[in-house]
Amino acid sequence: MITETQYARFDALKLDAGETLRDVQVAYETYGRLSEHRTNAILIDHAFTGDAHAAGIDHEGKPGWWDNMIGPGKAFDTDHYFVICSNVLGGCRGTLGPSSIDPATGKPYGLRFPGVTISDMVRLQKLLVDHLGIERLLAVTGGSMGGFQALEWAVAYPDAVEACIPIATTARHSAQQIAFNETGRQAIMADPDFLGGDFYDKKPPARGLSVARMIGHITYMSDESMREKFGRRLRDRQDFSYGFEIDFEVESYLRYRGSQFVGRFDANSYLYITKAMDYFDLAAGYPSLAASLERATSRFLVISFTSDWLYPSYQSQEIVNALRSRNHDVTYCELSSNYGHDAFLVDIGEQTEIVKGFLAKCTREFRGLEARQ
Amino acid sequence: MITETQYARFDALKLDAGETLRDVQVAYETYGRLSEHRTNAILIDHAFTGDAHAAGIDHEGKPGWWDNMIGPGKAFDTDHYFVICSNVLGGCRGTLGPSSIDPATGKPYGLRFPGVTISDMVRLQKLLVDHLGIERLLAVTGGSMGGFQALEWAVAYPDAVEACIPIATTARHSAQQIAFNETGRQAIMADPDFLGGDFYDKKPPARGLSVARMIGHITYMSDESMREKFGRRLRDRQDFSYGFEIDFEVESYLRYRGSQFVGRFDANSYLYITKAMDYFDLAAGYPSLAASLERATSRFLVISFTSDWLYPSYQSQEIVNALRSRNHDVTYCELSSNYGHDAFLVDIGEQTEIVKGFLAKCTREFRGLEARQ
Repeated sequence: MITETQYARFDALKLDAGETLRDVQVAYETYGRLSEHRTNAILIDHAFTGDAHAAGIDHEGKPGWWDNMIGPGKAFDTDHYFVICSNVLGGCRGTLGPSSIDPATGKPYGLRFPGVTISDMVRLQKLLVDHLGIERLLAVTGGSMGGFQALEWAVAYPDAVEACIPIATTARHSAQQIAFNETGRQAIMADPDFLGGDFYDKKPPARGLSVARMIGHITYMSDESMREKFGRRLRDRQDFSYGFEIDFEVESYLRYRGSQFVGRFDANSYLYITKAMDYFDLAAGYPSLAASLERATSRFLVISFTSDWLYPSYQSQEIVNALRSRNHDVTYCELSSNYGHDAFLVDIGEQTEIVKGFLAKCTREFRGLEARQ
Repeated sequence: MITETQYARFDALKLDAGETLRDVQVAYETYGRLSEHRTNAILIDHAFTGDAHAAGIDHEGKPGWWDNMIGPGKAFDTDHYFVICSNVLGGCRGTLGPSSIDPATGKPYGLRFPGVTISDMVRLQKLLVDHLGIERLLAVTGGSMGGFQALEWAVAYPDAVEACIPIATTARHSAQQIAFNETGRQAIMADPDFLGGDFYDKKPPARGLSVARMIGHITYMSDESMREKFGRRLRDRQDFSYGFEIDFEVESYLRYRGSQFVGRFDANSYLYITKAMDYFDLAAGYPSLAASLERATSRFLVISFTSDWLYPSYQSQEIVNALRSRNHDVTYCELSSNYGHDAFLVDIGEQTEIVKGFLAKCTREFRGLEARQ
């Protein structure tokens, strides 16, 4: 299916940082049909550098980032469900962010864009979901930073979430996770082309952004998956260069992925979104994680992957334990995979079966509740 | 004890890359006294950014990098042993490297310095050990890249090594280890102050080198040790900046360690030494790792640490298994520590006891052999 990105605009969005953004555009896509009673809507939250194009093929022939999970007969079966995905606030793929034009100056915001949080992103998604006429989502889900948003939905809007499926995620960043993000930010800000964020009419800070992305890619793969994919194989050569050209396949891959990223992602969005991730702490303002989850009324399906060292299973287990301590309805699956953090995007066999079963049950119970009302 | 760095010079050193370096200076320090029969010498090989100053206090009051392991009554007990440590070839702390003056041009080599390997580093150390009149070392040891050198000694100069103690190390870099190094190299070379390596009469590529070091520091610590040391604590503030100033303690730490590193380490040495690490493969040219170790005649003590994810225990176990498959005398200890890769430098309680016991046994057997000759 060819999918179209759509846009919605909202007059104002109040931010955690205190400021209010005006005329806030959101890019989103939908797949499948909203049922008569509007009880089959699933919101997909994307990870760090994702966008609204989650499924189908766009006009350039590019498949959505979770096309293997969303579509007829797939985990998020568009024969049954109405699936929504929107680009996050602070992003650069159609939703308001630092590369957008500031109406006050007629120029891109750059670093004059206010700081945003996961909760701001979710507040904007709530406006979109209201706009689409959906009172209660059948499910909210996402991997990585998408999982942060799913958790935030369950706590911020308990009446609007029937089921929550956080995948390969955490309730808060550890020092190590903050450290990786900070190193990426420093790489970008160290690039002289960064110009304090005002590079839009010149060239982007390509070298810094590329290094930041290289760091990211290492953390998305596992030691094993890198060994399987590259090992110590040399790239187009029989012997070492004894210089600083590309010797190893893995060097070639990282340089390629780094430079490719520059064409599709805004360096300022990189800064804003990583900060939003680092700031996120579901338990902030509560005595404990369990206390923060007390408000939630959703069923939960929590999924993690054995070889994911960026969002290790123990972080999912913290969420599960907190939910269980408040007697929430929670299922936890640690799936075996060698693909590291990327597993939720690429190693989707078991994930599909588990999500399907969970959604079928949630659908029955959601409709049953509706029938009794 | 105040220690003095000494220097030795050698006419020529043939390199794996084919070139020959002339007038090769080596910086080294020694601690303790060489015994009459010269059977008590221990060579310490330093890790990536280490230097010859391994023990005691230098004239600026700075303790050696392994001062907790070397000295009277310590693991490498200078009341009994004669301990040697030299700065590696390609380094920037007194031994010939890319920041040294090229006699052909009267200017620093920069990237005109030839590529070096772990085996080149060890070949130069062998000249030094010969120069000190030592035929067979009681032990060669080191952590991390120091372990590469210790292993290389055991294979390249089996007659010169009684015992080999590789710590927190590997027989070859994995794709992930190469990837981290490559990202650091790209960060340095992306800095416009790098100037193709000819920055010596200007300013160093400080921002790139600092980012490279930040990446390194994350890999040296464990998830747990970062959590214990920093957690999510804010730095000198009550609330988030919602900007790109320092929010978290861990950001402050990384920025500090990154910028501090610029003052003490040469960016070109960073490039050359990381490449030497990536090239290192003890099994290269042999059908297997076990086959490469066949030539060794040393006893081995292999040590790894549970939370070290940069040089994980499975890599030490590969060495141990290869040694056992050839019936070598090998003891393996996986020590419990939360300190990650840094453990061999900081968490030295058990390491000390194990090394002491091992060295006492090696000394008895080495002297016994000598008496029989």
